Amino acid sequence: MRATLMYEAGDVRIEDVPDPAIVEPTDAILRVTRACICGSDLWPYGALEPRETGRAMGHEAIGVVEDVGAEVRDIKVGDVVVMPFAFSDGTCAFCHEGLQTACVHGGFFDDYGASAAQAEAVRVPYADGTLFPLSVGEDDELMPSLLTLSDVMGTGHHAAVVASVAPGKIAAVVGDGAVGLCGVIAAKRLGAEQVIVLGRHEDRIALAREFGATDVVTERGDEAVERVKELTGGFGAHSVLECVGHGEAVETAIGIARPGGAVGRVGVPQHEAIAGGEAAFFGNIKIGGGPAPARAYIEELLPDILDGKIEPGRVFDRTVDLDGVPDGYRAMADRESIKVMIQP
Amino acid sequence: MRATLMYEAGDVRIEDVPDPAIVEPTDAILRVTRACICGSDLWPYGALEPRETGRAMGHEAIGVVEDVGAEVRDIKVGDVVVMPFAFSDGTCAFCHEGLQTACVHGGFFDDYGASAAQAEAVRVPYADGTLFPLSVGEDDELMPSLLTLSDVMGTGHHAAVVASVAPGKIAAVVGDGAVGLCGVIAAKRLGAEQVIVLGRHEDRIALAREFGATDVVTERGDEAVERVKELTGGFGAHSVLECVGHGEAVETAIGIARPGGAVGRVGVPQHEAIAGGEAAFFGNIKIGGGPAPARAYIEELLPDILDGKIEPGRVFDRTVDLDGVPDGYRAMADRESIKVMIQP
Repeated sequence: MRATLMYEAGDVRIEDVPDPAIVEPTDAILRVTRACICGSDLWPYGALEPRETGRAMGHEAIGVVEDVGAEVRDIKVGDVVVMPFAFSDGTCAFCHEGLQTACVHGGFFDDYGASAAQAEAVRVPYADGTLFPLSVGEDDELMPSLLTLSDVMGTGHHAAVVASVAPGKIAAVVGDGAVGLCGVIAAKRLGAEQVIVLGRHEDRIALAREFGATDVVTERGDEAVERVKELTGGFGAHSVLECVGHGEAVETAIGIARPGGAVGRVGVPQHEAIAGGEAAFFGNIKIGGGPAPARAYIEELLPDILDGKIEPGRVFDRTVDLDGVPDGYRAMADRESIKVMIQP
Repeated sequence: MRATLMYEAGDVRIEDVPDPAIVEPTDAILRVTRACICGSDLWPYGALEPRETGRAMGHEAIGVVEDVGAEVRDIKVGDVVVMPFAFSDGTCAFCHEGLQTACVHGGFFDDYGASAAQAEAVRVPYADGTLFPLSVGEDDELMPSLLTLSDVMGTGHHAAVVASVAPGKIAAVVGDGAVGLCGVIAAKRLGAEQVIVLGRHEDRIALAREFGATDVVTERGDEAVERVKELTGGFGAHSVLECVGHGEAVETAIGIARPGGAVGRVGVPQHEAIAGGEAAFFGNIKIGGGPAPARAYIEELLPDILDGKIEPGRVFDRTVDLDGVPDGYRAMADRESIKVMIQP
């Protein structure tokens, strides 16, 4: 079958690889019907060191189950399922606590095996714990929004939950990428009265406003902090969703948080330490977040998608087949596209 | 009157200074009956640059009100009161939220005026918002424990609250100073099933055990992390109380937190950034804390002191008069004393 491999920064190739097959009795094989390119894929796209064996790319998918191992009980061949970006056994203490990204047998799909989700098929470990069956057909018109349950909508929701968004509170979202936009949806959905988005791309900002953003801040750094304070009676936002991942974004996030407020960070950190730690201390600001337990959040978010209450699928502004994937990476890196959907 | 001034690292002097007087109509003047030396006073004691005007020292006191300004309504001359380490107006949004250390008119006593709490008297801004009247006499035998409500007991409690200590959880306390020891009391009081203290001073560890610590870890750094994991089924503590304040302690605190857990840091940070930010991200560990709203916690903690349920005053192992203060600093810096009480 064909799959996406990355050999170094900027070098994404579609290659023939062996078809995935059941290895462990808890595995399932998924025929991928929808996948996508993640903002986090742009970090290796910008910085991956050259390697001889390509890195298998893709961790977000919806697909149809084609095969299951002998110990898979709940997932059946033919099921249309969401595959969250992390696999998890569904039985350990962390899975029971709803933190599947800390599962003791869990892991991430990228670079896990010879192929991942940006491919015709993918092997899914711990199928029962990982996959979430849908009640819709494989070409349902809601597919774009359902696909976001594999990562970006769950991730934006996680940022909002960790930042303690609640009715009547002021939320601020740092970043206008797909996760930031889903963060806007999540903040609005959880009742924030004011939702400030920090970003500067016109198309994304327009979508953020449709998703419920009440204010837009295009400044960066100290000027952004000043602007948010002006918009919030001088104190900052109760809840800050950090949806970028580099040090400056975290520092801005802390800078715009109201004393006693919380920062939920979901951007994969491109830094070892958290800048602004001293400012966070004197403001009693909580900093939390990490890889979202997307699997845990599907149950809560799915009904709102099925009811049409939220439309996170609108973050997809381009659809490609596998041959179009390398150019899809380029388009996202050049900020030509917010997020690219793949129909293998 | 006589007061404590610091002129540079290691140079603490008792000098004659003008008696404090009402400046603002919301002020009160307190005759100090008990004060103490704080672990945080040791940071300038180790590092203060030479200065011409001495830095006024001391931010923890119990005293008798000697004078009040024209707009003071609730506090009366003759009241025996606790003075928390931060002053606060009692009326702003943050005071109402119970975060008095973020009060819009608030501040800290050290270096605020010509004298502070390690003195015969102290001027207290916003007396009604700041001071907490006690129903005991000025020489009550509970004075040592009541004095801890001005800082260390409230601070240890804050670490425990921010770290989400709850019944049945595992708590770990980084640091065996007075705040760490009060953190042990607080973790136990909030129902932690297992309380691990990280420290290596025999006298302090012995007191920690009496306060409820179930396990002691004397290792540091990576070895401490390994040891705590061994003691917690491999996963770490749900709640970590960081009671030191330097970067290595924060990194250890993050390292011993269970995925999904929380670190409450109350040690005044001697670092700009939070080390271990990447580890915190991948473990979805929350990092919170800051200057404790000691004023807010008095109401909750006072009954337990009056009932004898907790005895945080046992952290004082030496009492001095004002002349003994310079040697008290030395004794704490040399780890000869856990915490020094001052009876001016």
